[in-house]
Amino acid sequence: MTDASPHDAAAPRRRGRPSRTQTEAAPATRDRILDAAREEFSERGYEKTSVRGIAKAAGVDSALVHHYFGTKEQVFEAAVEVAVTPALAASNAVGDGPLDGVGERLTRFLFGVWENPTTRAPLLAIVRSAFNNEAAAAVFRRLLVAQLMRRIAQQLDVPDAELRAELAAAQLVGVAMLRYVIKLEPLASVDVERIIERVAPVVQAHLTAP
Amino acid sequence: MTDASPHDAAAPRRRGRPSRTQTEAAPATRDRILDAAREEFSERGYEKTSVRGIAKAAGVDSALVHHYFGTKEQVFEAAVEVAVTPALAASNAVGDGPLDGVGERLTRFLFGVWENPTTRAPLLAIVRSAFNNEAAAAVFRRLLVAQLMRRIAQQLDVPDAELRAELAAAQLVGVAMLRYVIKLEPLASVDVERIIERVAPVVQAHLTAP
Repeated sequence: MTDASPHDAAAPRRRGRPSRTQTEAAPATRDRILDAAREEFSERGYEKTSVRGIAKAAGVDSALVHHYFGTKEQVFEAAVEVAVTPALAASNAVGDGPLDGVGERLTRFLFGVWENPTTRAPLLAIVRSAFNNEAAAAVFRRLLVAQLMRRIAQQLDVPDAELRAELAAAQLVGVAMLRYVIKLEPLASVDVERIIERVAPVVQAHLTAP
Repeated sequence: MTDASPHDAAAPRRRGRPSRTQTEAAPATRDRILDAAREEFSERGYEKTSVRGIAKAAGVDSALVHHYFGTKEQVFEAAVEVAVTPALAASNAVGDGPLDGVGERLTRFLFGVWENPTTRAPLLAIVRSAFNNEAAAAVFRRLLVAQLMRRIAQQLDVPDAELRAELAAAQLVGVAMLRYVIKLEPLASVDVERIIERVAPVVQAHLTAP
Protein backbone atom coordinates (compact mmCIF):
# COMPACT_ATOMS: atom_id res chain seq x y z
CA MET A 1 0.00 0.00 0.00
CA THR A 2 3.02 2.32 -0.04
CA ASP A 3 2.16 3.55 -3.52
CA ALA A 4 -1.31 4.74 -2.53
CA SER A 5 -1.94 8.42 -3.02
CA PRO A 6 -4.55 10.45 -1.17
CA HIS A 7 -6.36 10.86 -4.47
CA ASP A 8 -7.00 7.14 -4.89
CA ALA A 9 -10.58 6.00 -4.96
CA ALA A 10 -9.68 3.90 -1.91
CA ALA A 11 -8.94 7.02 0.09
CA PRO A 12 -12.19 8.96 0.17
CA ARG A 13 -12.06 12.70 0.72
CA ARG A 14 -14.65 12.97 3.44
CA ARG A 15 -13.95 16.21 5.21
CA GLY A 16 -13.31 19.38 3.34
CA ARG A 17 -10.59 21.52 4.84
CA PRO A 18 -7.20 19.93 4.22
CA SER A 19 -4.82 20.13 7.14
CA ARG A 20 -1.47 21.84 6.91
CA THR A 21 0.18 18.48 7.59
CA GLN A 22 -0.96 17.37 4.17
CA THR A 23 1.95 19.13 2.63
CA GLU A 24 4.05 16.22 3.93
CA ALA A 25 4.84 13.32 1.65
CA ALA A 26 1.34 11.84 1.46
CA PRO A 27 1.98 8.08 1.20
CA ALA A 28 4.30 8.09 4.21
CA THR A 29 1.69 9.95 6.28
CA ARG A 30 -1.07 7.63 5.16
CA ASP A 31 1.00 4.60 6.12
CA ARG A 32 1.86 6.12 9.47
CA ILE A 33 -1.84 6.65 10.18
CA LEU A 34 -2.57 3.05 9.19
CA ASP A 35 0.18 1.73 11.44
CA ALA A 36 -1.14 3.80 14.31
CA ALA A 37 -4.69 2.65 13.60
CA ARG A 38 -3.67 -1.01 13.61
CA GLU A 39 -1.88 -0.57 16.93
CA GLU A 40 -4.75 1.31 18.52
CA PHE A 41 -7.42 -1.14 17.37
CA SER A 42 -5.25 -4.09 18.46
CA GLU A 43 -4.66 -2.70 21.90
CA ARG A 44 -8.02 -1.14 22.67
CA GLY A 45 -10.50 -2.91 20.46
CA TYR A 46 -12.88 -1.19 18.09
CA GLU A 47 -15.16 0.59 20.51
CA LYS A 48 -12.52 2.17 22.68
CA THR A 49 -10.44 3.38 19.76
CA SER A 50 -11.11 6.91 18.53
CA VAL A 51 -10.05 8.74 15.41
CA ARG A 52 -8.57 11.36 17.71
CA GLY A 53 -6.45 8.69 19.47
CA ILE A 54 -5.23 7.32 16.15
CA ALA A 55 -4.34 10.83 14.99
CA LYS A 56 -2.45 11.48 18.20
CA ALA A 57 -0.51 8.20 17.93
CA ALA A 58 0.37 9.02 14.33
CA GLY A 59 1.34 12.59 15.20
CA VAL A 60 -1.17 14.16 12.83
CA ASP A 61 -4.35 16.16 13.08
CA SER A 62 -7.67 14.25 13.36
CA ALA A 63 -8.88 16.05 10.25
CA LEU A 64 -6.17 14.34 8.25
CA VAL A 65 -7.33 10.90 9.37
CA HIS A 66 -10.86 11.78 8.29
CA HIS A 67 -9.51 13.20 5.06
CA TYR A 68 -7.66 10.02 4.11
CA PHE A 69 -10.07 7.40 5.39
CA GLY A 70 -13.43 8.84 6.35
CA THR A 71 -15.25 7.42 9.38
CA LYS A 72 -13.82 5.26 12.17
CA GLU A 73 -15.35 2.19 10.52
CA GLN A 74 -13.54 3.08 7.30
CA VAL A 75 -10.23 3.54 9.12
CA PHE A 76 -10.79 0.14 10.74
CA GLU A 77 -11.54 -1.53 7.44
CA ALA A 78 -8.44 0.01 5.83
CA ALA A 79 -6.24 -1.04 8.77
CA VAL A 80 -7.59 -4.58 8.67
CA GLU A 81 -7.24 -4.73 4.93
CA VAL A 82 -3.58 -3.77 5.05
CA ALA A 83 -3.01 -6.39 7.74
CA VAL A 84 -4.74 -9.22 5.94
CA THR A 85 -4.04 -8.39 2.29
CA PRO A 86 -0.73 -10.29 2.13
CA ALA A 87 -2.44 -13.21 3.86
CA LEU A 88 -5.37 -13.13 1.46
CA ALA A 89 -2.98 -12.96 -1.49
CA ALA A 90 -1.18 -16.02 -0.15
CA SER A 91 -4.55 -17.68 0.38
CA ASN A 92 -5.04 -17.83 -3.38
CA ALA A 93 -2.68 -20.78 -3.23
CA VAL A 94 -5.11 -22.56 -0.91
CA GLY A 95 -7.58 -22.92 -3.74
CA ASP A 96 -4.92 -24.20 -6.14
CA GLY A 97 -3.88 -27.82 -6.25
CA PRO A 98 -5.87 -31.00 -5.83
CA LEU A 99 -9.18 -30.73 -3.99
CA ASP A 100 -8.32 -33.64 -1.71
CA GLY A 101 -5.57 -31.54 -0.14
CA VAL A 102 -7.60 -28.34 0.34
CA GLY A 103 -8.35 -29.11 4.00
CA GLU A 104 -4.70 -29.35 4.90
CA ARG A 105 -3.68 -26.34 2.78
CA LEU A 106 -6.39 -24.15 4.33
CA THR A 107 -5.61 -25.31 7.87
CA ARG A 108 -1.86 -24.79 7.42
CA PHE A 109 -2.42 -21.41 5.87
CA LEU A 110 -4.59 -20.17 8.74
CA PHE A 111 -2.36 -21.46 11.51
CA GLY A 112 0.60 -19.96 9.67
CA VAL A 113 -1.10 -16.57 9.91
CA TRP A 114 -2.09 -17.06 13.58
CA GLU A 115 1.29 -18.38 14.70
CA ASN A 116 3.07 -15.39 13.19
CA PRO A 117 3.13 -12.62 15.83
CA THR A 118 3.01 -9.87 13.18
CA THR A 119 -0.26 -11.09 11.72
CA ARG A 120 -1.69 -12.42 14.97
CA ALA A 121 -2.04 -8.99 16.60
CA PRO A 122 -4.27 -7.44 13.93
CA LEU A 123 -6.25 -10.67 13.64
CA LEU A 124 -6.90 -10.64 17.37
CA ALA A 125 -8.00 -7.04 17.06
CA ILE A 126 -10.45 -7.85 14.29
CA VAL A 127 -11.86 -10.86 16.03
CA ARG A 128 -12.22 -9.19 19.43
CA SER A 129 -13.85 -6.17 17.86
CA ALA A 130 -16.10 -8.23 15.61
CA PHE A 131 -17.66 -9.94 18.60
CA ASN A 132 -18.56 -6.66 20.24
CA ASN A 133 -19.48 -4.29 17.51
CA GLU A 134 -21.74 -4.59 14.50
CA ALA A 135 -19.57 -2.38 12.27
CA ALA A 136 -16.53 -4.49 13.06
CA ALA A 137 -18.52 -7.69 12.52
CA ALA A 138 -19.44 -6.41 9.07
CA VAL A 139 -15.77 -5.87 8.24
CA PHE A 140 -15.01 -9.40 9.48
CA ARG A 141 -17.74 -10.83 7.24
CA ARG A 142 -16.71 -8.86 4.18
CA LEU A 143 -12.96 -9.24 4.31
CA LEU A 144 -12.17 -12.54 5.87
CA VAL A 145 -14.98 -14.92 5.36
CA ALA A 146 -16.45 -13.63 2.15
CA GLN A 147 -13.09 -13.27 0.41
CA LEU A 148 -11.42 -16.39 1.69
CA MET A 149 -14.17 -18.93 2.25
CA ARG A 150 -16.40 -17.99 -0.65
CA ARG A 151 -13.48 -18.42 -3.03
CA ILE A 152 -13.00 -21.94 -1.74
CA ALA A 153 -16.72 -22.69 -1.81
CA GLN A 154 -16.81 -21.77 -5.50
CA GLN A 155 -14.42 -24.60 -6.29
CA LEU A 156 -16.44 -27.25 -4.51
CA ASP A 157 -18.70 -29.35 -6.61
CA VAL A 158 -21.03 -30.29 -3.76
CA PRO A 159 -24.50 -29.22 -2.64
CA ASP A 160 -24.48 -26.68 0.21
CA ALA A 161 -20.96 -25.58 -0.72
CA GLU A 162 -21.27 -22.25 1.11
CA LEU A 163 -22.66 -23.79 4.26
CA ARG A 164 -19.90 -26.39 4.20
CA ALA A 165 -17.22 -23.73 3.78
CA GLU A 166 -18.69 -21.82 6.73
CA LEU A 167 -18.71 -24.89 8.96
CA ALA A 168 -15.07 -25.49 8.05
CA ALA A 169 -14.36 -21.85 8.87
CA ALA A 170 -16.21 -22.32 12.16
CA GLN A 171 -13.86 -25.13 13.15
CA LEU A 172 -10.84 -22.97 12.38
CA VAL A 173 -12.24 -19.84 14.02
CA GLY A 174 -13.21 -21.87 17.09
CA VAL A 175 -9.75 -23.38 17.50
CA ALA A 176 -8.16 -19.95 17.08
CA MET A 177 -10.51 -18.48 19.71
CA LEU A 178 -9.86 -21.16 22.29
CA ARG A 179 -6.11 -21.31 21.64
CA TYR A 180 -5.18 -17.66 21.19
CA VAL A 181 -7.91 -15.70 22.99
CA ILE A 182 -9.40 -17.87 25.74
CA LYS A 183 -6.08 -19.75 26.14
CA LEU A 184 -7.64 -23.01 27.13
CA GLU A 185 -5.18 -25.72 28.17
CA PRO A 186 -3.92 -28.04 26.75
CA LEU A 187 -5.03 -26.49 23.44
CA ALA A 188 -3.17 -23.22 24.04
CA SER A 189 0.24 -24.83 24.56
CA VAL A 190 0.21 -27.91 22.38
CA ASP A 191 2.45 -27.92 19.30
CA VAL A 192 0.53 -26.52 16.35
CA GLU A 193 1.38 -29.61 14.27
CA ARG A 194 -0.69 -31.77 16.59
CA ILE A 195 -3.64 -29.46 16.07
CA ILE A 196 -3.21 -29.41 12.30
CA GLU A 197 -3.04 -33.19 12.26
CA ARG A 198 -6.49 -33.40 13.88
CA VAL A 199 -8.15 -30.35 12.35
CA ALA A 200 -7.11 -30.66 8.68
CA PRO A 201 -9.12 -33.88 8.10
CA VAL A 202 -12.17 -32.26 9.71
CA VAL A 203 -11.88 -29.21 7.44
CA GLN A 204 -11.42 -31.53 4.47
CA ALA A 205 -14.51 -33.54 5.44
CA HIS A 206 -16.62 -30.39 5.80
CA LEU A 207 -15.59 -29.29 2.33
CA THR A 208 -15.63 -32.47 0.29
CA ALA A 209 -17.10 -35.48 2.12
CA PRO A 210 -20.34 -36.80 0.60
CA MET B 1 -30.42 -20.16 44.06
CA THR B 2 -33.51 -18.77 45.80
CA ASP B 3 -32.56 -20.51 49.05
CA ALA B 4 -29.18 -18.80 49.21
CA SER B 5 -28.65 -16.67 52.28
CA PRO B 6 -26.14 -13.83 52.55
CA HIS B 7 -24.25 -15.97 55.02
CA ASP B 8 -23.56 -18.74 52.52
CA ALA B 9 -19.95 -19.46 51.69
CA ALA B 10 -20.92 -18.66 48.10
CA ALA B 11 -21.81 -15.10 49.05
CA PRO B 12 -18.58 -13.65 50.47
CA ARG B 13 -18.82 -10.74 52.88
CA ARG B 14 -16.30 -8.46 51.26
CA ARG B 15 -17.13 -5.04 52.54
CA GLY B 16 -17.85 -4.38 56.17
CA ARG B 17 -20.66 -1.96 56.74
CA PRO B 18 -24.01 -3.59 55.88
CA SER B 19 -26.44 -1.32 54.09
CA ARG B 20 -29.82 -0.45 55.49
CA THR B 21 -31.41 -2.21 52.53
CA GLN B 22 -30.20 -5.49 53.98
CA THR B 23 -33.17 -5.57 56.27
CA GLU B 24 -35.19 -6.62 53.18
CA ALA B 25 -35.90 -10.28 52.53
CA ALA B 26 -32.40 -11.37 51.57
CA PRO B 27 -32.95 -14.08 48.93
CA ALA B 28 -35.32 -11.89 46.92
CA THR B 29 -32.83 -9.04 46.96
CA ARG B 30 -29.96 -11.30 46.00
CA ASP B 31 -31.96 -12.67 43.07
CA ARG B 32 -32.95 -9.19 41.99
CA ILE B 33 -29.28 -8.19 41.93
CA LEU B 34 -28.41 -11.28 39.90
CA ASP B 35 -31.17 -10.58 37.40
CA ALA B 36 -29.96 -7.01 37.05
CA ALA B 37 -26.36 -8.18 36.70
CA ARG B 38 -27.26 -10.64 33.96
CA GLU B 39 -29.13 -7.94 32.06
CA GLU B 40 -26.35 -5.39 32.44
CA PHE B 41 -23.58 -7.79 31.40
CA SER B 42 -25.68 -9.01 28.45
CA GLU B 43 -26.37 -5.54 27.20
CA ARG B 44 -23.09 -3.80 27.89
CA GLY B 45 -20.50 -6.54 28.08
CA TYR B 46 -18.14 -7.08 30.98
CA GLU B 47 -15.97 -4.01 30.71
CA LYS B 48 -18.71 -1.43 30.41
CA THR B 49 -20.75 -2.89 33.23
CA SER B 50 -20.20 -1.41 36.68
CA VAL B 51 -21.26 -2.58 40.12
CA ARG B 52 -22.86 0.81 40.53
CA GLY B 53 -24.91 0.29 37.34
CA ILE B 54 -26.03 -3.15 38.51
CA ALA B 55 -27.02 -1.73 41.88
CA LYS B 56 -28.99 1.05 40.21
CA ALA B 57 -30.81 -1.40 37.92
CA ALA B 58 -31.66 -3.58 40.92
CA GLY B 59 -32.76 -0.60 43.00
CA VAL B 60 -30.26 -1.23 45.78
CA ASP B 61 -27.15 0.40 47.15
CA SER B 62 -23.77 -0.55 45.58
CA ALA B 63 -22.56 -1.63 49.01
CA LEU B 64 -25.17 -4.36 49.03
CA VAL B 65 -23.93 -5.77 45.72
CA HIS B 66 -20.41 -5.87 47.14
CA HIS B 67 -21.74 -7.41 50.33
CA TYR B 68 -23.46 -10.28 48.57
CA PHE B 69 -20.99 -10.96 45.78
CA GLY B 70 -17.69 -9.16 46.27
CA THR B 71 -15.90 -7.79 43.21
CA LYS B 72 -17.30 -7.19 39.73
CA GLU B 73 -15.64 -10.40 38.55
CA GLN B 74 -17.43 -12.29 41.32
CA VAL B 75 -20.78 -10.74 40.42
CA PHE B 76 -20.14 -11.76 36.82
CA GLU B 77 -19.28 -15.30 37.78
CA ALA B 78 -22.38 -15.59 39.95
CA ALA B 79 -24.60 -14.19 37.19
CA VAL B 80 -23.13 -16.56 34.63
CA GLU B 81 -23.41 -19.48 37.00
CA VAL B 82 -27.12 -18.88 37.57
CA ALA B 83 -27.63 -18.62 33.83
CA VAL B 84 -25.77 -21.78 32.92
CA THR B 85 -26.45 -23.99 35.94
CA PRO B 86 -29.67 -25.47 34.57
CA ALA B 87 -27.88 -26.09 31.29
CA LEU B 88 -24.91 -27.72 32.99
CA ALA B 89 -27.27 -29.89 35.04
CA ALA B 90 -28.97 -31.00 31.83
CA SER B 91 -25.54 -31.58 30.31
CA ASN B 92 -24.98 -34.46 32.71
CA ALA B 93 -27.19 -36.42 30.37
CA VAL B 94 -24.73 -35.77 27.53
CA GLY B 95 -22.19 -38.03 29.19
CA ASP B 96 -24.76 -40.78 29.79
CA GLY B 97 -25.64 -43.31 27.14
CA PRO B 98 -23.52 -45.03 24.52
CA LEU B 99 -20.27 -43.34 23.57
CA ASP B 100 -21.03 -43.62 19.86
CA GLY B 101 -23.90 -41.16 20.34
CA VAL B 102 -22.04 -38.59 22.44
CA GLY B 103 -21.30 -36.33 19.45
CA GLU B 104 -24.96 -35.99 18.60
CA ARG B 105 -26.06 -35.60 22.24
CA LEU B 106 -23.47 -32.88 22.87
CA THR B 107 -24.27 -31.04 19.65
CA ARG B 108 -28.04 -31.20 20.27
CA PHE B 109 -27.59 -30.08 23.84
CA LEU B 110 -25.52 -27.03 22.89
CA PHE B 111 -27.74 -25.92 20.04
CA GLY B 112 -30.72 -26.42 22.35
CA VAL B 113 -29.18 -23.90 24.72
CA TRP B 114 -28.24 -21.46 21.94
CA GLU B 115 -31.58 -21.66 20.13
CA ASN B 116 -33.46 -20.84 23.33
CA PRO B 117 -33.68 -17.04 23.63
CA THR B 118 -33.63 -17.17 27.45
CA THR B 119 -30.29 -18.93 27.59
CA ARG B 120 -28.85 -17.33 24.46
CA ALA B 121 -28.67 -13.83 25.93
CA PRO B 122 -26.46 -14.71 28.92
CA LEU B 123 -24.33 -16.99 26.74
CA LEU B 124 -23.76 -14.14 24.30
CA ALA B 125 -22.80 -11.94 27.21
CA ILE B 126 -20.26 -14.45 28.49
CA VAL B 127 -18.77 -15.09 25.11
CA ARG B 128 -18.54 -11.44 24.10
CA SER B 129 -17.00 -10.52 27.42
CA ALA B 130 -14.63 -13.48 27.43
CA PHE B 131 -13.07 -12.34 24.16
CA ASN B 132 -12.31 -8.90 25.53
CA ASN B 133 -11.41 -9.31 29.13
CA GLU B 134 -9.10 -11.68 30.96
CA ALA B 135 -11.30 -11.93 34.06
CA ALA B 136 -14.28 -12.86 31.92
CA ALA B 137 -12.15 -15.33 29.92
CA ALA B 138 -11.22 -17.03 33.19
CA VAL B 139 -14.89 -17.43 34.08
CA PHE B 140 -15.55 -18.88 30.63
CA ARG B 141 -12.72 -21.38 31.09
CA ARG B 142 -13.77 -22.41 34.57
CA LEU B 143 -17.49 -22.71 34.13
CA LEU B 144 -18.19 -23.77 30.63
CA VAL B 145 -15.28 -25.62 29.24
CA ALA B 146 -13.81 -27.11 32.38
CA GLN B 147 -17.13 -28.28 33.72
CA LEU B 148 -18.71 -29.47 30.52
CA MET B 149 -15.88 -30.62 28.30
CA ARG B 150 -13.64 -32.10 30.98
CA ARG B 151 -16.50 -34.26 32.19
CA ILE B 152 -16.86 -35.65 28.69
CA ALA B 153 -13.09 -36.07 28.26
CA GLN B 154 -12.98 -38.19 31.40
CA GLN B 155 -15.22 -40.76 29.78
CA LEU B 156 -13.13 -41.11 26.65
CA ASP B 157 -10.75 -44.00 26.51
CA VAL B 158 -8.43 -42.38 23.96
CA PRO B 159 -5.03 -40.68 24.09
CA ASP B 160 -5.23 -36.87 24.08
CA ALA B 161 -8.76 -36.97 25.46
CA GLU B 162 -8.63 -33.39 26.74
CA LEU B 163 -7.23 -32.00 23.50
CA ARG B 164 -9.88 -33.90 21.56
CA ALA B 165 -12.65 -32.55 23.78
CA GLU B 166 -11.32 -29.03 23.26
CA LEU B 167 -11.21 -29.41 19.48
CA ALA B 168 -14.81 -30.64 19.59
CA ALA B 169 -15.68 -27.64 21.75
CA ALA B 170 -13.88 -25.42 19.23
CA GLN B 171 -16.13 -26.66 16.44
CA LEU B 172 -19.23 -25.92 18.51
CA VAL B 173 -17.98 -22.55 19.76
CA GLY B 174 -16.99 -21.58 16.22
CA VAL B 175 -20.39 -22.40 14.76
CA ALA B 176 -22.10 -20.51 17.57
CA MET B 177 -19.87 -17.48 16.96
CA LEU B 178 -20.47 -17.36 13.21
CA ARG B 179 -24.20 -18.12 13.47
CA TYR B 180 -25.27 -16.04 16.48
CA VAL B 181 -22.65 -13.29 16.80
CA ILE B 182 -21.13 -12.63 13.37
CA LYS B 183 -24.36 -13.72 11.66
CA LEU B 184 -22.68 -15.08 8.59
CA GLU B 185 -25.05 -16.21 5.82
CA PRO B 186 -26.18 -18.89 5.01
CA LEU B 187 -25.08 -20.26 8.40
CA ALA B 188 -27.08 -17.71 10.39
CA SER B 189 -30.44 -18.53 8.78
CA VAL B 190 -30.25 -22.21 7.93
CA ASP B 191 -32.43 -24.61 9.93
CA VAL B 192 -30.53 -25.79 12.98
CA GLU B 193 -31.19 -29.43 12.05
CA ARG B 194 -29.07 -29.05 8.94
CA ILE B 195 -26.21 -27.77 11.06
CA ILE B 196 -26.58 -30.58 13.61
CA GLU B 197 -26.58 -33.13 10.79
CA ARG B 198 -23.16 -31.92 9.64
CA VAL B 199 -21.60 -30.96 12.96
CA ALA B 200 -22.55 -33.95 15.15
CA PRO B 201 -20.39 -36.44 13.18
CA VAL B 202 -17.45 -34.03 13.38
CA VAL B 203 -17.83 -33.70 17.15
CA GLN B 204 -18.12 -37.47 17.39
CA ALA B 205 -14.96 -37.98 15.31
CA HIS B 206 -13.01 -35.51 17.44
CA LEU B 207 -14.02 -37.40 20.56
CA THR B 208 -13.80 -41.03 19.53
CA ALA B 209 -12.24 -41.60 16.09
CA PRO B 210 -8.93 -43.49 16.19
